[in-house]
Amino acid sequence: MERIIHKYGGSSVATPEHIKRIADRLESRHRNGDEVVAVVSAMGSRTDELYALAERITNSPEPREMDMLLSTGEMVTSTLLSMALHELGVEAVSLTGAQAGIRTTAVFGRARIADIQTERLEKELNRGRVVIVAGFQGMTEDADVTTFGRGGSDTTAVALAAALDADRCEIFTDVAGIYTADPRVCPKARPLQEIGYEEMLEMATTGARVMHARAVEIGEQYGVAIRVASSFDETAQGTLIHGDLTMEQGNKVRGIAHQNHIAKVTVRGVPDRPGIAAHLFEPLATAGVSVDTIVQNASVEKLTDMTFTVAPADLDRALQVVQSAENEIGPAEVVSDPNLGTVSIVGTGMASAPGFAARMFRTLYENKVNIDMISTSDIRITCVVASEQVDEAVRSLHDAFDLDRED
Amino acid sequence: MERIIHKYGGSSVATPEHIKRIADRLESRHRNGDEVVAVVSAMGSRTDELYALAERITNSPEPREMDMLLSTGEMVTSTLLSMALHELGVEAVSLTGAQAGIRTTAVFGRARIADIQTERLEKELNRGRVVIVAGFQGMTEDADVTTFGRGGSDTTAVALAAALDADRCEIFTDVAGIYTADPRVCPKARPLQEIGYEEMLEMATTGARVMHARAVEIGEQYGVAIRVASSFDETAQGTLIHGDLTMEQGNKVRGIAHQNHIAKVTVRGVPDRPGIAAHLFEPLATAGVSVDTIVQNASVEKLTDMTFTVAPADLDRALQVVQSAENEIGPAEVVSDPNLGTVSIVGTGMASAPGFAARMFRTLYENKVNIDMISTSDIRITCVVASEQVDEAVRSLHDAFDLDRED
Repeated sequence: MERIIHKYGGSSVATPEHIKRIADRLESRHRNGDEVVAVVSAMGSRTDELYALAERITNSPEPREMDMLLSTGEMVTSTLLSMALHELGVEAVSLTGAQAGIRTTAVFGRARIADIQTERLEKELNRGRVVIVAGFQGMTEDADVTTFGRGGSDTTAVALAAALDADRCEIFTDVAGIYTADPRVCPKARPLQEIGYEEMLEMATTGARVMHARAVEIGEQYGVAIRVASSFDETAQGTLIHGDLTMEQGNKVRGIAHQNHIAKVTVRGVPDRPGIAAHLFEPLATAGVSVDTIVQNASVEKLTDMTFTVAPADLDRALQVVQSAENEIGPAEVVSDPNLGTVSIVGTGMASAPGFAARMFRTLYENKVNIDMISTSDIRITCVVASEQVDEAVRSLHDAFDLDRED
Repeated sequence: MERIIHKYGGSSVATPEHIKRIADRLESRHRNGDEVVAVVSAMGSRTDELYALAERITNSPEPREMDMLLSTGEMVTSTLLSMALHELGVEAVSLTGAQAGIRTTAVFGRARIADIQTERLEKELNRGRVVIVAGFQGMTEDADVTTFGRGGSDTTAVALAAALDADRCEIFTDVAGIYTADPRVCPKARPLQEIGYEEMLEMATTGARVMHARAVEIGEQYGVAIRVASSFDETAQGTLIHGDLTMEQGNKVRGIAHQNHIAKVTVRGVPDRPGIAAHLFEPLATAGVSVDTIVQNASVEKLTDMTFTVAPADLDRALQVVQSAENEIGPAEVVSDPNLGTVSIVGTGMASAPGFAARMFRTLYENKVNIDMISTSDIRITCVVASEQVDEAVRSLHDAFDLDRED
């Protein structure tokens, strides 16, 4: 007997017919004697429909109300899946995030899990029931409903796997696993058999949006091995995200991540003295602008240039904040470019092995892709390039690092 | 300053534009300094859509899951109305039935309110917020979501009015109040200025489905005066349901109620001995068949006839139950008629004033309406007639009892 957590995303539960197919799969697991918890997202485009409803009321919905509104999408799926299991003769029960004991911070729209009180979950599993948990949501101390942000059902699944000490955590999605690059951009891309947590995080936060980054972080923190596989092809293995990569796997480029659309803001001639960065980035954070890469150039005559990237949708807000920060940082020239993208090579051990960066830069040069900015981490090298050159950059790097070959 | 409870039904909140109009009304009450609680139903046909979703999964949805599914409809409306108030600069908060402290029995689909824990409600009102409560739902001791059955938002509103000791409870609907008869059937029907609780109950349970009967019962029990008015015409007075009718109002026919479709089952030649009725009606109750009128004829040679009415949708089930009860009651001839309806005259004091029944029967006779069954209560006389004659019966009785004249 195993205790397993399944997670099914929106496209896997898009219609009642999809939901019945998921019920069939859960029924066979349950018949094996396994303890089964399934976490579900909202059906298909329901979350978008709920956003659209709110937009017809207001342009700035109260986050607390938005969270309660959005949480209903996952509730609907969970009840329908539970009904489908009953129809197959399987005892099942749907639980909201709150009923599943998921206690969160009171930061609406991007709440973090504080604690999972597993009494109800354990009780239902002990009664032999399949437990369906509405994903992406929890409850504050004051019994208000919170959500975790888009993709948050992954977080629910991995957190439950940790709290319930599950044997397996399987994320079923509409792709066959974690690819070496986005297959829509790069036809030679193929699913990886395995990937490390940190590599997955870099892939996730730099464009490969198969997994919610926070889910991967929780997986790493609690040592939960996560399998990502297709919900439409039961035979495919998918990709195992875990921490125990074999040694020879640890020293190569594992994948190419990319973002097609980012914007860049450069503040020129900023005085090079302590506190300047804080004066710039604190108000950006307060205004809710999420800053990605930050680069500060070497100082020339006590003046420096500061460059950072943001989502294009946040660009206007970012420019306003920078302008109103001139009181603190003095007059500065502000330049922006909304038509950029990023391409990254990701792999453990790149920092300790020379030549990865050089090969990346040469490949881009040979393909006439100009590099606008560079940033690196231990396991990632990212180049900011023109938006329209991102796809070509991904394909050429996929070739250059032989990613079409099996692991 | 008054503390007021408003309730808005599905047609009053059918679209985001409707919801904004309701927000305008609540905003002006709030600006007056009143404490405002608004109870809302699901938007337009959302409840029907949720039923349809469940039907695509199973013909016999688990009641617990159905309740959680249906509860999302009211949650959506409550969050949107709260957002619309925020948009107008009014502090507001939406609460699920559970968050509003509504504790119920664990009878899914038709839970009854056990208790309302008003701490959260009082706290929000004290903070000056408009409180929006998702109608028709509550929570069991085990934190499971329950619903009260169709129309249950009325029950939420009246129960909150009682628990919060509100000054006013106003039910806004798509009609101008409680009519002397159904205006779709009887063009001369007009809204009543007032009606007693018991009269309203008879009107509600015998066909005038403007108010949920249980809401009226709670109103009577706790002495909550309930105003039913149009949500589309703010100038109209509507109808006040209360217990303090002036003396001369208490001795007349107040309205004509009707049901277009009922079915009748007659069991002929039943042995006339103790326990027979129990052997028949207990299994019907167990099978979930709601029996309306029951008539037992005088006994002839130790055999009697037993007749009862049910909803046409329950007729097949009722016949099955009756047939399988033959073990207990002996062989009997069972006759049924699915094409019947009822027409009732309703008014306090009819029992103590002779002549109402006679005038009713004569009116039906003069209009060639044959009476199939008769049943009476202190404040109601009901005739079962052919389904296709119901409308004509309503119109002729409305004329005969001068109901088109002002109160």
